[in-house]
Amino acid sequence: MNRRMILNTVGKMLLAEGLFLLLPALTALIYGEAKGLIALLITVGIALLSGGMMCGLAKPKSAVIYAKEGFFIVSASWILLSLVGALPFTISGEIPNYIDAVFETVSGLTTTGASILTDVEAMSHGMLFWRSFTHWIGGMGVLVFVMAILPNVSERSIHILRAEAPGPVVGKLVPRLKDTARLLYVIYIALTALLTVLLLAGGMSPFDSLIHAFGTAGTGGFGVRADSIASYSPYLQWVITVFMLIFGVNFNLYYLILVRRFKTALKSSEFWAYVTIVLLATGGVAVSIWGQYGSAEETVRHAAFQVSSIVTTTGFATTDFNLWPQFAKGILLLLMFIGGCAGATAGGFKVSRIVILFKQIRRELQKMLHPRSVKTLRFEGHQLEEQTTRGVLSYLALYLICFLVIFLFVSADSFGDFETHFSSTASCFNNVGPGFAGVGPTANFASYSLLSKLVLSAGMLLGRLEIIPLLIFFSPSSWKK
Amino acid sequence: MNRRMILNTVGKMLLAEGLFLLLPALTALIYGEAKGLIALLITVGIALLSGGMMCGLAKPKSAVIYAKEGFFIVSASWILLSLVGALPFTISGEIPNYIDAVFETVSGLTTTGASILTDVEAMSHGMLFWRSFTHWIGGMGVLVFVMAILPNVSERSIHILRAEAPGPVVGKLVPRLKDTARLLYVIYIALTALLTVLLLAGGMSPFDSLIHAFGTAGTGGFGVRADSIASYSPYLQWVITVFMLIFGVNFNLYYLILVRRFKTALKSSEFWAYVTIVLLATGGVAVSIWGQYGSAEETVRHAAFQVSSIVTTTGFATTDFNLWPQFAKGILLLLMFIGGCAGATAGGFKVSRIVILFKQIRRELQKMLHPRSVKTLRFEGHQLEEQTTRGVLSYLALYLICFLVIFLFVSADSFGDFETHFSSTASCFNNVGPGFAGVGPTANFASYSLLSKLVLSAGMLLGRLEIIPLLIFFSPSSWKK
Repeated sequence: MNRRMILNTVGKMLLAEGLFLLLPALTALIYGEAKGLIALLITVGIALLSGGMMCGLAKPKSAVIYAKEGFFIVSASWILLSLVGALPFTISGEIPNYIDAVFETVSGLTTTGASILTDVEAMSHGMLFWRSFTHWIGGMGVLVFVMAILPNVSERSIHILRAEAPGPVVGKLVPRLKDTARLLYVIYIALTALLTVLLLAGGMSPFDSLIHAFGTAGTGGFGVRADSIASYSPYLQWVITVFMLIFGVNFNLYYLILVRRFKTALKSSEFWAYVTIVLLATGGVAVSIWGQYGSAEETVRHAAFQVSSIVTTTGFATTDFNLWPQFAKGILLLLMFIGGCAGATAGGFKVSRIVILFKQIRRELQKMLHPRSVKTLRFEGHQLEEQTTRGVLSYLALYLICFLVIFLFVSADSFGDFETHFSSTASCFNNVGPGFAGVGPTANFASYSLLSKLVLSAGMLLGRLEIIPLLIFFSPSSWKK
Repeated sequence: MNRRMILNTVGKMLLAEGLFLLLPALTALIYGEAKGLIALLITVGIALLSGGMMCGLAKPKSAVIYAKEGFFIVSASWILLSLVGALPFTISGEIPNYIDAVFETVSGLTTTGASILTDVEAMSHGMLFWRSFTHWIGGMGVLVFVMAILPNVSERSIHILRAEAPGPVVGKLVPRLKDTARLLYVIYIALTALLTVLLLAGGMSPFDSLIHAFGTAGTGGFGVRADSIASYSPYLQWVITVFMLIFGVNFNLYYLILVRRFKTALKSSEFWAYVTIVLLATGGVAVSIWGQYGSAEETVRHAAFQVSSIVTTTGFATTDFNLWPQFAKGILLLLMFIGGCAGATAGGFKVSRIVILFKQIRRELQKMLHPRSVKTLRFEGHQLEEQTTRGVLSYLALYLICFLVIFLFVSADSFGDFETHFSSTASCFNNVGPGFAGVGPTANFASYSLLSKLVLSAGMLLGRLEIIPLLIFFSPSSWKK
């Protein structure tokens, strides 16, 4: 195992976090928030110092990275990033308990958006900015970012990209890995900027526009108001609906559109499955809540917004969907598990995996009737290797086991009923944010015990990193020479 | 497709049902229940007449059966058996609505034990006998029975056995298929008889002993009292606990013990996984409910009984476990999905599949770290074919999709909350019986709409036949020439 390489890369990541923290510090400066500014600057110092020391002391002798190094780098980075990122909240006293602050930071970085804050509107601008900015950083992946800006990125770092990026198949868009990472960030920044402009155009304040652009782009869900997006205008709600959906699409598609390969882009079966799911779910929810709102436009708007918010695992809300009929809530619960497309900023099981599952089931049934038939599966124009299919199927099993273990742990909490525990687990593990009942869109996670908050934080990380990196990082046998 | 063979075999199955119905008719005669006797005899007539006609008119020209014929025979048989078996309840007026009666019969045959009866103690002896007897018939499989008693059973009927018997791998115990079927029934009858004697020895009335022996052997759960097993003595509760667990074990083990191959029997990894799950779950539940009951014995007894009842998907109860803490209920919910061993009378996903899933996940993780490693999986002393592993993984996906679709349908009901809908779906689909909240052990399924009852009935059949036979039977493409 290339330990020096691991330490060195994790160090670089801490340096990146130190730089990221300068933006909220600037915000605190602008709004004259002394306490917040000091807390953020102290954390900048800690991040730069520790990151610099790690980089300086561990100079890698070789650039060789295998899958294992990739898993280790990603796991260690995300955990350290969360632990350091939580410091400003506690140092400033705005989230006094450090475990609460870790929960909030993990929730931010993993683009979950579940909060322990009972009064979000009392937070300072600097902290609100940092909280939402973690969505934006975590959405595309901080390691992808580091790869995009650093010189000397080895092609072997594809293992890091694979370990951090969501979805069953991760490849390069362009021949050089570094260029792929850059391209992804260029698209990401451009779309975020476009959204910010559209929000400003709708009369949202500059600060709120940035916050909601971060929350939407990262499919996170942290906002600035207790009622999330409910009190903003219908125009703003529609803009956010559309952009949540945009950020739930595989970024490969945007690359294909950029290079004018429209035909290939339009052939994506994952994209059409995603569109179908969104339309069917919106229709189902609209029927279920029909008559509850003033007009047809309002009904469809709330249905479309909540469906888009949940399927992309963002977690914004325009209405208290916990009060909706069981059928509408059932649809939303399903959407939590489905999630967005692979290669997007969304969480969940991913639409591409579901498409592959359906294809595999179909083939399995055919094989039962005609045992001698040989059929290979195709996906997005390529033949699916047996290994990929088996990987997706095994991931389903692993995903379920993790979900159930977390659910069981959370159930031991003295707070909450079955619906609360089940939906909080589903919501955190799939990086959605709100759940139902005790953790519905108007409630929060504050009432859970510290132990449950740690378990749910672990669940968010497991969901974001798709389990395997963390499982390998924490398995004792991986640490043997 | 060998249509004549399908019709002929389904006809034989109806004849068998006609003969089975003579036993409850005898019971009604003994207890002098005229109305019940007439209803049962009418149904005997219908079953024998229609069965006889089908056998007589459709004489198969060839004995060739492929997998497809197996799926068709099993699907058609179980549906017809349910529709005919429901008649006595409606004709006698004891369950006036025919859909309710179908729900109750499907619940009986699939060994679920979910009931729409609001007052089980008001039922006549004949009807109670038939209701519980369906558990016993459905437990081992009615087609296995038909194969056991009929002459001229083709070796090709293995396809029927495979379609009806639960679990990932179904083989013959002894060279001749007919002998395998007979052997299974001999073990089944012997164990049921032993249980009946032990219940009688504990002071249970002969009628109650038979009813509970049927309910335990089939892992069904229909009883005669509103509080299930709660008012029987601790001895009787312990006897039922042990026998529920016995009927949740793969019957192959009993065969191995019969032929004195103890070593092979003790090597079964499915068996040890099952024992581990039961012990861990009992421990977990006992800790969770500690202090709620008078003594340590009572606590452990209730924990062990409920765990055994749920993991074997029987559904008897000695206490209202719906009032237990969320953690204990969470464990029970997990057990519902796990279910018993393959080749037992239990439902659920089956322990053997879970063992295979864990082995597969382990291999997948190793393959991620060492892409060139080649490792074959072994299970119960044999090498697992890739096809079997992929079959188990695909079944998991199919199982989940079915579960979620049923859950969504049931959620549209105006009755019940999230916990009710989720647990009723889990309970019916896994053939358990009771759920939580609105369908807890002291409640029943009467409040669901007729549509939901039909959907849940379909769920029970899907669970018992493990989805694939019914999916193929109802897919239009299977009916094409």
